[in-house]
Amino acid sequence: MADPRFMFEDFKPGDLLDYGGMVVDRDDMVAFAREYDPQPMHLSEAAAQGSMLGELIASGWYTAALLMRMSCDHMMVDSSSLGSPGVERLEWRAPVRAGDILRVRGEVLDARVSKSRPEIGIVSFRFEVRNQDDVVVMRQENAVMFGRRSGGAS
Amino acid sequence: MADPRFMFEDFKPGDLLDYGGMVVDRDDMVAFAREYDPQPMHLSEAAAQGSMLGELIASGWYTAALLMRMSCDHMMVDSSSLGSPGVERLEWRAPVRAGDILRVRGEVLDARVSKSRPEIGIVSFRFEVRNQDDVVVMRQENAVMFGRRSGGAS
Repeated sequence: MADPRFMFEDFKPGDLLDYGGMVVDRDDMVAFAREYDPQPMHLSEAAAQGSMLGELIASGWYTAALLMRMSCDHMMVDSSSLGSPGVERLEWRAPVRAGDILRVRGEVLDARVSKSRPEIGIVSFRFEVRNQDDVVVMRQENAVMFGRRSGGAS
Repeated sequence: MADPRFMFEDFKPGDLLDYGGMVVDRDDMVAFAREYDPQPMHLSEAAAQGSMLGELIASGWYTAALLMRMSCDHMMVDSSSLGSPGVERLEWRAPVRAGDILRVRGEVLDARVSKSRPEIGIVSFRFEVRNQDDVVVMRQENAVMFGRRSGGAS
């Protein structure tokens, strides 16, 4: 089987990523909230009227899910990803609204071979999700484990 | 309008929380992955066979979404919550599988009045999501802003 397109060796500290362009669908955004984050400001325009911002905004977890989806489409699904141990930091910086168009700007912060498992590399990313006005709506730092080319034998 | 059940004053450092008991529904778990995290190990038993663990496991973002849902049901929806600035740390520690029963153990790490906005209090939580075998599958630390009783006038 051919190697996937993105493996550990394809990420170097300082590399910049730019992808996405996903339109926030109002009904999908609300369906997510109904299922996982049923607070008034996420459920409907009417329910949101009495909330802090007075308008319907996305659950922060929905924005995180859209970042994951954009990252999957851009690289994860065609990669040697072995998953992530977690997220070091996630900031919700500005509201996400129905109709927003979200892009991802990423940077590779670090890329190192695992000491205990040399067949694996660990890549640390900083992701910024920006809307159509170039406002950063979410920022996230997390590591991803990737398999190495030639199983690390090189 | 009556005050909501949970406001800033209801959280003190050291307070312990225990709630949840949600069963991980296989079809909901897979539907989430199809939409937001379409990596093979999250999509079907067959697709997961070639993956690291060789079995179908939940997207970590699905587990995070279930934690949010359990927190909404237990307290957030009947609270003066004003949202969260973000997550300080999120660790995915063990696989979540269809049929697992998830509970939340929480602890209040800190509770303080905002200096710039004294009508708001900021509560820092540590949440652990445990399965039916008492294995911690996810750990998360994050702050939530809550309105104060009597608008902070007390």
